[in-house]
Amino acid sequence: MTQESGTTGSVVVLAGGVGGAKLAHGLALLGLGDRLCVVVNTADDFELYGLAISPDLDTVLYTLAGIANPVTGWGILGDTAHTLGMLGRYGRPTWFWLGDRDLATHILRTERLRQGARLTEVTAELAAALGVTARILPMCDEPVRTIVETPHGPLPFQEYFVRRRQQDTVLAVRFEGIMQAHPTPEVEQALLHADAVILAPSNPIVSIGPILALSGIRQLLQQLAAPIVAVSPIVAGRALKGPADRMLASLGHEVSPLGIARLYQDFLDGLVIDQADTELAPAVAELGIRPFVTDAIMRDEADRARLARETLAFALDLRGARP
Amino acid sequence: MTQESGTTGSVVVLAGGVGGAKLAHGLALLGLGDRLCVVVNTADDFELYGLAISPDLDTVLYTLAGIANPVTGWGILGDTAHTLGMLGRYGRPTWFWLGDRDLATHILRTERLRQGARLTEVTAELAAALGVTARILPMCDEPVRTIVETPHGPLPFQEYFVRRRQQDTVLAVRFEGIMQAHPTPEVEQALLHADAVILAPSNPIVSIGPILALSGIRQLLQQLAAPIVAVSPIVAGRALKGPADRMLASLGHEVSPLGIARLYQDFLDGLVIDQADTELAPAVAELGIRPFVTDAIMRDEADRARLARETLAFALDLRGARP
Repeated sequence: MTQESGTTGSVVVLAGGVGGAKLAHGLALLGLGDRLCVVVNTADDFELYGLAISPDLDTVLYTLAGIANPVTGWGILGDTAHTLGMLGRYGRPTWFWLGDRDLATHILRTERLRQGARLTEVTAELAAALGVTARILPMCDEPVRTIVETPHGPLPFQEYFVRRRQQDTVLAVRFEGIMQAHPTPEVEQALLHADAVILAPSNPIVSIGPILALSGIRQLLQQLAAPIVAVSPIVAGRALKGPADRMLASLGHEVSPLGIARLYQDFLDGLVIDQADTELAPAVAELGIRPFVTDAIMRDEADRARLARETLAFALDLRGARP
Repeated sequence: MTQESGTTGSVVVLAGGVGGAKLAHGLALLGLGDRLCVVVNTADDFELYGLAISPDLDTVLYTLAGIANPVTGWGILGDTAHTLGMLGRYGRPTWFWLGDRDLATHILRTERLRQGARLTEVTAELAAALGVTARILPMCDEPVRTIVETPHGPLPFQEYFVRRRQQDTVLAVRFEGIMQAHPTPEVEQALLHADAVILAPSNPIVSIGPILALSGIRQLLQQLAAPIVAVSPIVAGRALKGPADRMLASLGHEVSPLGIARLYQDFLDGLVIDQADTELAPAVAELGIRPFVTDAIMRDEADRARLARETLAFALDLRGARP
């Protein structure tokens, strides 16, 4: 952590994929080193061709390693898909894009998991090999799988998200395996020793939702002394990326920073909202959550670093302000 | 089978990698369809990054599918190695070249084997998907692993063959797991119903050797009514490819078609030798094995078809000549 932040503990980010990876990258740019812990959703994980694929972990990994595709936000810069083409020639479905370089990650993860390693260990090994100093922590080591209930029937998350391009109305979301899953000791320790906890601008239902649904996590956050702030993934009534806005609406939530604030109300100290939503700041404050208005959209690396710096400073300021 | 061959049964080829694949391809070019059965060595198989790799099966598969790299004889034409590069970036050894397209084969084979499929089934599925009509039959479904004893110690086959580039003197060769392995029902049936059996010009020690070492195969060949011919992989005292010549020499065998004839003497009816070895024909005949002298080197597709046609005609001629 930089000296100006005036703290010696760690900063924990709860993250999904692209939005979470961007904010985590911004925090990494502040020089936090291994005192930055990114707790990542794994309920998007699935198996394809027998390979264990963890889309959110990979997006965070590639982004922090500086090799992410800047156009898509996911995948590896300049990656090709020759293996995928050949899988198609073998008659297999190819709706989930897998890059050739990207495949190395899935192959090694699968190998290590089959050898009995924990997902947490495997992730640490991959990150270390790519020179990532931040700690990337899967939310749990047990398999959890998001199922999206739609008029078309229940869909495994990637079927909903990638194959059917989020076209289906989301009637409900459930996390298979969540009752048998536990936050890892690494996640618990990171939270217990955090100077600040930041919820990234990730989908509150299917990215942050699974993390919060893990046994004991919500209670832990409620009791935490460290300040907890979120960055709203909703700006001017729309999701910055993905189907969060439609998902919030169809599940009966307000599609605004206020809707976000209400979802996290039981543990949240502060909410970073975009200047486009300035008029909602008083309503957020009325919930007992301190609003912080800024430019909350991360267009480039400079934006990531700035939003990360502002968010962290905002959180650390709240430390003294807590009752 | 073409009408000119005058038979209605199948032709079984015992094969290793590149040499076997070339002759099998030549036979396929004769229009044998699914009456061509290629029994392939699997003692070269190994696991890398948790993937089940069958180098000889793949070489035969790619060659018969018309997608083999014509320069190396193995691998897929025009393949790239981006996954391998990334595996290297993750700190893994990359001495075994794995192409990106090639990886699709290993990934699907591994998936299906883990699902409980037999290697024979998996191979048939892959071949069908690539439009191969010939039957590619692994010699067995159980794992067999060639270990090469060298002054450097015992080496798994690919360590000897690829990593150490066949630089070590071969003191002995053993096939781990061979006592627990059995020729598959498909291999036994193919042999029992064969009109002709052809031993491809593959390494007699480490390619044909494991097939012959399988329980009951040698006895089956000895009792077979169908003619059995081999194509010598040794021409003018040298192996056409690979370390067969040095391997034969260090194991005390004569490095010539005569040495080959002696290795197969207990069941062989005829031996195809190159014109460069014409002077050895009488010595081969003295072993009770009919020699056939021709141009036995397959430089291109025309050579493959010609040598296949000549070899098959030679074998079928021997049918009437048997005692």
